[in-house]
Formats: sequence, C-alpha cells, structure tokens
Amino acid sequence: MKKFIVKDTQVMSELAAAILKGTMVNDKRVNLALTTGSSPKGTYELVTKWYKENKENLSNVFFYNFDEIEPKDGQTSITITGLRDQFFAPAEVPESQIQPLTYANYARYDQMIAEAGGLDAMLIGLGEDGHFCGNMPYATDFSKDTYQLMIKEEYPWYEMITGMFGEQTPDYIVTMGLQSLLRVKHLILIINGAGKAKAVKQMFDSEITTAFPASALRLHPNLTVIMDEDAASLLC
Amino acid sequence: MKKFIVKDTQVMSELAAAILKGTMVNDKRVNLALTTGSSPKGTYELVTKWYKENKENLSNVFFYNFDEIEPKDGQTSITITGLRDQFFAPAEVPESQIQPLTYANYARYDQMIAEAGGLDAMLIGLGEDGHFCGNMPYATDFSKDTYQLMIKEEYPWYEMITGMFGEQTPDYIVTMGLQSLLRVKHLILIINGAGKAKAVKQMFDSEITTAFPASALRLHPNLTVIMDEDAASLLC
Amino acid sequence: MKKFIVKDTQVMSELAAAILKGTMVNDKRVNLALTTGSSPKGTYELVTKWYKENKENLSNVFFYNFDEIEPKDGQTSITITGLRDQFFAPAEVPESQIQPLTYANYARYDQMIAEAGGLDAMLIGLGEDGHFCGNMPYATDFSKDTYQLMIKEEYPWYEMITGMFGEQTPDYIVTMGLQSLLRVKHLILIINGAGKAKAVKQMFDSEITTAFPASALRLHPNLTVIMDEDAASLLC
Amino acid sequence: MKKFIVKDTQVMSELAAAILKGTMVNDKRVNLALTTGSSPKGTYELVTKWYKENKENLSNVFFYNFDEIEPKDGQTSITITGLRDQFFAPAEVPESQIQPLTYANYARYDQMIAEAGGLDAMLIGLGEDGHFCGNMPYATDFSKDTYQLMIKEEYPWYEMITGMFGEQTPDYIVTMGLQSLLRVKHLILIINGAGKAKAVKQMFDSEITTAFPASALRLHPNLTVIMDEDAASLLC
Repeated sequence: MKKFIVKDTQVMSELAAAILKGTMVNDKRVNLALTTGSSPKGTYELVTKWYKENKENLSNVFFYNFDEIEPKDGQTSITITGLRDQFFAPAEVPESQIQPLTYANYARYDQMIAEAGGLDAMLIGLGEDGHFCGNMPYATDFSKDTYQLMIKEEYPWYEMITGMFGEQTPDYIVTMGLQSLLRVKHLILIINGAGKAKAVKQMFDSEITTAFPASALRLHPNLTVIMDEDAASLLC
Repeated sequence: MKKFIVKDTQVMSELAAAILKGTMVNDKRVNLALTTGSSPKGTYELVTKWYKENKENLSNVFFYNFDEIEPKDGQTSITITGLRDQFFAPAEVPESQIQPLTYANYARYDQMIAEAGGLDAMLIGLGEDGHFCGNMPYATDFSKDTYQLMIKEEYPWYEMITGMFGEQTPDYIVTMGLQSLLRVKHLILIINGAGKAKAVKQMFDSEITTAFPASALRLHPNLTVIMDEDAASLLC
Repeated sequence: MKKFIVKDTQVMSELAAAILKGTMVNDKRVNLALTTGSSPKGTYELVTKWYKENKENLSNVFFYNFDEIEPKDGQTSITITGLRDQFFAPAEVPESQIQPLTYANYARYDQMIAEAGGLDAMLIGLGEDGHFCGNMPYATDFSKDTYQLMIKEEYPWYEMITGMFGEQTPDYIVTMGLQSLLRVKHLILIINGAGKAKAVKQMFDSEITTAFPASALRLHPNLTVIMDEDAASLLC
Repeated sequence: MKKFIVKDTQVMSELAAAILKGTMVNDKRVNLALTTGSSPKGTYELVTKWYKENKENLSNVFFYNFDEIEPKDGQTSITITGLRDQFFAPAEVPESQIQPLTYANYARYDQMIAEAGGLDAMLIGLGEDGHFCGNMPYATDFSKDTYQLMIKEEYPWYEMITGMFGEQTPDYIVTMGLQSLLRVKHLILIINGAGKAKAVKQMFDSEITTAFPASALRLHPNLTVIMDEDAASLLC
C-alpha cells in the first residue's frame, strides 16, 4: 500500500485526477470503475473538462460502476445515475463507453470485465461504517466477486437504507466483492474530512473482518490511499 | 481461479513444468518462488534437465523460497536445503540466482522482491491441515506480508513441529503471508493424492478462515489449481 | 531476445507447446495468434490433445490469425483454413473463440484485439526468404499495423504466389505489420531444419531492412527464438 | 499511439506531470527515464514540489537518464548534470534512487534496468533534426539497445557538437537505442513550440529512416504524444 496524506480535499482531488488521467492516456483499452458521492466531487471537477476536450482521443476508455441499488419501482438505478450526473453527462462520455452494472447482469459482470482485459483502475471511497463499494458491515462475503448482498433487518445499516428508499427498498444490493477488487490493477482510495478519521484508523489497525469490510482493502497488491490531514488525524 | 483436474501426478507435473518453463523463457528478469516436498517432485524432475541444458540462457531467472524454518542449532535451514536438494543442485542453478529467505532477512524480503520487479510465479502445495507456505492453522495473520509466525503449544500442529525438531525447535517460522502471495503475478497450486481430498474440498467450500488458511488462496487474482483425480475426488 | 538452440524439432515443439499451455492457464482472457505450416506441426500435436481434454476450462482463450490470403473465387481463406485443419478442428476449439482476420475486417482487426485486451502471445515461423507473417520482402511497410500488402510482379516472390493461386491470385495479402507484433506481450519464433539456416543467420546479422523483413523481429521487447541445431548451424 | 494536441506549454506540462505522478504512486518499484532541456521545464516545475513533499513515500521510484555525453576532460556529464539541476536537486531525490548512465556502465545498463524490473515510463522530447535521446540523424543504429554512437565529421550535426564541446568533444555519445525504448512500458513524448512543427510533421509522415530517427518512435506499443498547438500546426 502507498499512503499519501495531503493538506486538503483539493490536493487529494488533484492527485486522484492525475492518476486517472495518467491511466486514460495509455494506448490500449483502459477500463475504469468509479465511485459516486461527495469524496470524488473535486476529482471529477478536475477530470471533466479535460475529458470533454479530449473525448475523441479517449475512445479507448470504458467506464464501469462497482455497485448498484435499484429501487423496487425500477425507476432509477442509484449508482449509475450518480455517475451520470457527476461525470458522464458533463464530460460527455459516449454511451457506448459506459458499461453499467445492473441487477440483470451482475452475475456476468466479472466475466464481461475479464473479456475486456480487466479493470486498469478503480476509484473508491471509504464508508464511515467501514463499507467499501456495496460491501456492508456484517453482510459482506469476502470470498465473492460480484454478488448480491442481502438487505436484512438484522444489519446495523438496515434503517439507513430503508430510510432512503422506504417502500422501494429492494431485497439486495449488487456489488463487486473483494475478489473483483483484488483483480483491479490499481486501486485508488480517496478519503477526506474529519468525519472519516475514525474509519481510517480502523481500516489500518483492525484485523481483517466483515465487521469492518474495508479492513480487507489492505490485501490489495497495488493500493494507493490518498487522505487529507483531517481524515488522517487519528493515525500515529 | 482456473481449476485443472488431471489423471495423475505425472500429468499434473507436466502441466506445472510447462507453466514454469513458459515463464522462464520470457526476455525479462523472471522471479520464481518454489515449494519443496513430495508434491513438486515430478515437476522438478521435468524441469531440472531442461534448466541444466539451458542454464546459460536462463541467467534471467531468480529463485526464492516462500518460508523457512531454522533449527535452533543454526545448522540447516529446512526449506532452502530442500530446494537445493530437489532442484537447485541437480539443475546447477548458479548461487547468484538464489535469493534465500532467512530469519535474518525476512523483514526486508518483500522489499527485496519488489525492487527486483516482483514475483512472476509461485509454485505451492496444499497442506492436509490447510496450511499454505508457512501459514499454519490458527496462527496465520491474513494482514501480513512476510512475517514471523510463532510456534506455540496452543496450536494443533505444535507437536508435529516439535516431533521434527525436538530441542532444536525454534520459536517461530518465517513465511510469506497472504499479502505477499496476492502480489505474485501467477500462483500455481499443485495437489495430488487421495490424502489431500478432504483438504481440497475444504479449501473450496469453507469460508475464508485462519482455521484453514488455504481458504484465502481463492482470493488470488490469477490462481491455477492443478489436481489429480484422487485429490479432487470429494469435489462435486 | 532469448535464444534457445535445441536438439531437434521434437524438443523445439515441446518448448513451444509448454509456452502456449503456460499462457492459456492464466485466469484472464488470453488472446493467441498462431501460425500454420510445417514448423508448428509438432507443437500442435502436443497441444491439441491437452486442449481438447481441457476445453471447458479454456473458454478464456481466444484465437487469432495474423495474416490471410483469400483467393479471388472466395472459396477458401488460406491461413484460417490451415489453422482449422491443423489445430482448431482436432482440438475442438469452439467457433466463438476463433476470431478470424479477413479481407473484410483487416482495417478493424488491431482495434478488435485492443478492445479484447491485446495479444498475450503469438507463435510465428521464419520464411526462408525472410518474411514474417505476410510481410514479404521488398513489399513490407514497417510503419503499419494490420494492412494490405500488394502482390505485384516486381517482387521476387510474385511467381511463387501466382504459382499457388493461378487465376485466383488476389491483389493483396492482409497481414499484421511490425506495429501489431510489437504490441504482442510474448512473441515466440520457432525455426527448424537446415533449409532455414541461411535465413536464421540473416535474421540475426543483417541490418533491419525490408529486403529481409524478419530482421525487424529483433526489435521485439519479449522475443523467444527456439531453433533446432540444423536451423542454427550457421550461427557462430 | 495516442496523440494529444493541447493549447500551450502549460497544458502540455500539466498532462505530462499527471502521467509521471500517476506512475510514481503505484505500489511497486517504479523506474523512470527522464529528459533534460527546455521541453520538460514546465513538467518538472509541476512535479518537483510534489515529489519533495512526498519524497518519503516515493522511495519506490528510481530515476535513469537515457543518454549521456562526457566531455574529454571528464569534468561534467551533460545529461545527468542537467537532470540534477532541473529536477533531482530541487526535488531532493535521494542519491540512492538515481541510476546514472555513464560511459563506464553503458554496456551493462539495459541489463541493470532489466534486473530492476524494466522502465515503467520514459519522458522524451523531439529534436528539430529528428533525433530522439542520443540517436542522431544518419548515425543511429535501429538494431541496438544502449550503445556508443560515434561522433564523426561526416554527420550534419558534427559542428553543432564541436561547437558546444570544442577540444573536449568526446569520440561518442552513449544512448539508449530503439530496442531499449521499445521495452519501456509507457513512452511519453512532449513537443512544444512552432520551431518543432516541421519535425513533428516529419515524424508522423516520413518513412522509418535513420535520416530522421524519431520516425521509428511510431513503432512503440504504448506511445503518448503531447504537443501544443504550435508544434502541431503543420499536421492536417
């Protein structure tokens, strides 16, 4: 693992953007899996304009999402919609270069990726509760590649989910698992804000446990962690 | 994971030897970590003559051991001695191409390997008790690269070790850990004989647990398992 | 370049077969481009039975041809037919794993390969006249990837071609060019027989010239040459 | 080849810097060969501060020069001195991470690099006369890895060299050759300024010829060209 502690979110975003750009300019098919949410916001701001200006030169780059949650009414797939809003739409990524993970194709998704030469890089965040991708505490199965992770009342995050989706809460999330991630050539984990400090400490110090799934990310053979000083504040 | 179930030890050895030879002939520095014992015997018989005849052409290939046990009297390091007897000596591998793991250098061993470009392949076996390399049941720490694994009375394999080494039993084994193995570009696991059938079944079916360390090998992004029919007999 | 001089065709074939098998067993999509003709005959004999027995485990392996000649009557594409006869049919390679290069798709072929993750290995032979793939003397353009190589009276090999195809001689061959080959991760060149000895010497000693196209193979970053003693007899 | 035409030197430098940073943060030994001169000035300005701030995290990165000229008086090696002035000194790169190419070690330099896992990236410029690294027009041998390129009166650039070095002009330059470059995993070519426009056109349009050595760069399997609009102005 390589660990970079940087001043603030801006510097974190600059380094993450540099890695993404440096990966995209290779003269080969490049496959990227990306995260949504607030952590990568700055990164996408830095990449979007550049991608858009160079999009004809970047037809070699294909985009994947690493988890998905589809409300029961089938209206909006959360992750891919987030990615479209945050990056694909403003960057004008052609639809043909977007390879969505869905409830319908999750069982074939690792195979699809393998046949496309594998994922070159994945940008992920860290959940305060220790989840990575859709691998939620206590529900994670470390022996899986992309799989259905069941949403059950017994889990501490159940109410968080039902709070978001109400009656449209589906029975499960689909997510890439630890096996899928271990196949990614370069894993980039960005973490910012004091709110993540405790999770950061746990990720590095706890044993590898499904109680804190991100503990298993330490196993990745090429992991770059970029944290701002707030997120790293509890590390010694 | 790719799983090959073959007729017998001879066919297993032929495929393992082909993989090793196919790796060694690349025009780059090639780093190989090898196992000792009875499982690879046939493989080394097939590789030895070829290596010896071509040794001047194979100065690009460097050899590593992935675990070591040094009796207290300091006389013989078990693994490297096994490798010398089984392969390095008969194949006439030059001393300069052998990079032994020792009690003295274990803390720098992953660094040494990284600075040499990483391990291209590792040939390993499966212990009946589920150990891989020196990662013994209950004593294994999945979050480690190369580390000291303590030999303690509380472990079920303690008497097996003290039976072998008596008063010369050291306090610990040194072994590459799961992290080291996940960095290996191609992991080749050879398993033969009915005596391994139960362990094979457990490796594939159990959850990932330090009670059966080899269960974690399923996480490897490029694992080729070669088993004879006897070893595979309990798989459905 | 790594150069192996072996006793005879059998030993050459064994090593080439080992490399191919060692490549196919990786747990990833594997793309192989193969040659036809007499040189690889022994290699295919060794690989065929093994492939056939393991074909369900080898659904990750895709096959490509690196050149093609289509007679004007459109009846038989020479190279792919040769590969089918020599290897695909007896080995029972599923049609879905065969990706033929044709006159119709040659302009998109490098792109197709790139989108499938690139070629992992290519097995080629050496022409007595110094051609490699369909890159014929004096007609070769070293700056190309897959391209049309025109068949013209001015070339010394014109009569050889018209002798084979008569009135069905097409206007051009399609072939991967030097650029395509330089992208292949492992290039394996097999050469046997005293009839190739002069060409072998030229390949190693001549300057890089379109008069002897194979001289450019020395540029490949990962080239393994396997020759029998007869083919190597003029090397000092 | 991937070709990026950008607004100006600043944007060129930003993309080049992103690629270098994106390469350095991988969790493996990273080997970089760098150019000196005016083209990379902006790139180094962007990388220097970042490297310096993160140098303890970048002990995995080793630096190489791809050519050298040592005046007869043995006082100053031109290229490595340029790199020290432009980058190594201000960035505070530890001496142990600098691996200079010299007249004394040139014959072993490719071997040294191979044993360190190969070059991950090389940043180069384009000479107005078509040279790349020290591969000068008419004097270049495309079949070489690192070699001595003789300085002779017959070459059109002879007076340029003697003008710089006078009586201290050595008999030869040492430079990585085309073979060395074809082994580099990612080749990054930066070109800026109207003064390079004609050379750019020739690099893309001429046949591959030692009269304009950079024509051969098109053979590289992973070449990223970054040009400003001035440099690209003669491309259609």
